[in-house]
Amino acid sequence: MSAAAAKAAPALSPARPVAIVAGAGRLPLLIVAALEEAGRSCRVLALRGFADPATRRRADAMVDLLDVRGALDTLRGWAPAGVTLAGAVARPSPAALLNTLAAYRNRDTLRALASGGDDHLLRGVLALLEEHGLHVLGVRDLAPGLMAPRGRFGTLGPDAAAEASVEAGRALLASLSPHDVGQAAVVASRRVLAVEGPEGTDRMLARARTLARRPLGLGRPPAAMVLVKRAKDGQDLRVDLPAIGPRTVTRAAAAGCLGIAVGAGDTLVLDRTETVALADRLGLFLLGLPPSPEPSR
Amino acid sequence: MSAAAAKAAPALSPARPVAIVAGAGRLPLLIVAALEEAGRSCRVLALRGFADPATRRRADAMVDLLDVRGALDTLRGWAPAGVTLAGAVARPSPAALLNTLAAYRNRDTLRALASGGDDHLLRGVLALLEEHGLHVLGVRDLAPGLMAPRGRFGTLGPDAAAEASVEAGRALLASLSPHDVGQAAVVASRRVLAVEGPEGTDRMLARARTLARRPLGLGRPPAAMVLVKRAKDGQDLRVDLPAIGPRTVTRAAAAGCLGIAVGAGDTLVLDRTETVALADRLGLFLLGLPPSPEPSR
Repeated sequence: MSAAAAKAAPALSPARPVAIVAGAGRLPLLIVAALEEAGRSCRVLALRGFADPATRRRADAMVDLLDVRGALDTLRGWAPAGVTLAGAVARPSPAALLNTLAAYRNRDTLRALASGGDDHLLRGVLALLEEHGLHVLGVRDLAPGLMAPRGRFGTLGPDAAAEASVEAGRALLASLSPHDVGQAAVVASRRVLAVEGPEGTDRMLARARTLARRPLGLGRPPAAMVLVKRAKDGQDLRVDLPAIGPRTVTRAAAAGCLGIAVGAGDTLVLDRTETVALADRLGLFLLGLPPSPEPSR
Repeated sequence: MSAAAAKAAPALSPARPVAIVAGAGRLPLLIVAALEEAGRSCRVLALRGFADPATRRRADAMVDLLDVRGALDTLRGWAPAGVTLAGAVARPSPAALLNTLAAYRNRDTLRALASGGDDHLLRGVLALLEEHGLHVLGVRDLAPGLMAPRGRFGTLGPDAAAEASVEAGRALLASLSPHDVGQAAVVASRRVLAVEGPEGTDRMLARARTLARRPLGLGRPPAAMVLVKRAKDGQDLRVDLPAIGPRTVTRAAAAGCLGIAVGAGDTLVLDRTETVALADRLGLFLLGLPPSPEPSR
């Protein structure tokens, strides 16, 4: 049993399976692998139209995203020790979620949820599952080995200038934490080039790339540019986990970043081996920042 | 003498003129008009290639932006009670400013200034003028009547939902204040759609427009969307004044904003009459927010 899986064990009845509601990407099967390595049985409920072919082949059942009744019946039938929403990491369309939830909740509540940030909406999904007696867990609880570790996790580390940029970004994100806004920023020295909104990290990096190519300073690219990404303080990491992966590395490099700093333990590193190899090849550092003084859930 | 001009009078020797270093746009002549209405003499030093034709016709002298020696000699020759940089409001190219300053300051200092935010750079310009015995004043000191007033200053006011968005934006900008980043945000209910970076308000509004048309929530435009813009706490308003004008109103309306809230007394309203008329016509409210508890300079 890996140390990572052992950590999560005390909270879960070992006799009952873990249920994984599987959306797009490789994450669901990465979780299955981590859990099976730890000797735990899994049940996979694949979301039709979202789950990858490999996930669908491994699935114990398949439902439509909109078939909430079917999903709840299946999940409760398995009597799982816990449920995790690996699809939620890829942020399913809130409109689809709302339609789904509409049968179960007051329409005005839904509108209120939707007019807030993603957090509000996803908390609604969590509440629904928990109302039906399901214990919802995060990837962090089930497979902490998939999260960014502390310190550098590629070959390179930041120099002093990049460290200063990382610290400026960390401080900025800490200030933004009480507000319902992005979890990432691009910083070059003390200058904040971009703060992530609902457009997501990829589009923010594209913006930073444009700004860096049309330099505002010395007629050369901004110095010591870095991407910093981490969870908000108090963010519910069961449904809205910051993540990086190979694509993030490619886009950060294209924007001119020297490296990427993420919250250790609160940011998922998708395809770790590929992510690290790509960062090494493109000359970017990867750094896991220690948690905030008051750790989020 | 208008109440606005009277406010500024105590700080200035009445016998000596006010010098206006004039860049692009109508602001320089608006300041001249406000000062002359208050019975004060003005000298206009127009920046060649930047100052509008009307400003150049009124100018007492003209210099190249890069001719720092000539500008300093002219200004000191006028022995002004104070100097204001009306061109700085339009943010002259930092690259050009750096070239200008390079003859006067250590290159490494310049690089350090340029690698920080606009604030650092512009503080360098101020310091240079003050080292040469010139007293630098802001538009706010000279013509407070050009600044946004408190409360609504168009016909419309915000409803409760828009007020909540304005408050969320105000709180966000207060949190961002210690960091060297933008002074504006677009907020719809509690959701922050965009935070301004070095790209400026116009491009941020274009981003918000795209997000609003590709709604993340209910398949309809985000509710109660507003633009909030104000100075950072402690910002030196002599060189980097937040501003709105007719173009801001047009772009905010195109993005889907219900209105614009700005810091009262710390945000310039360019072409007030036109700005208000346009807001009224497009159905946007204009609101001046009371200053922060600790007022900036």
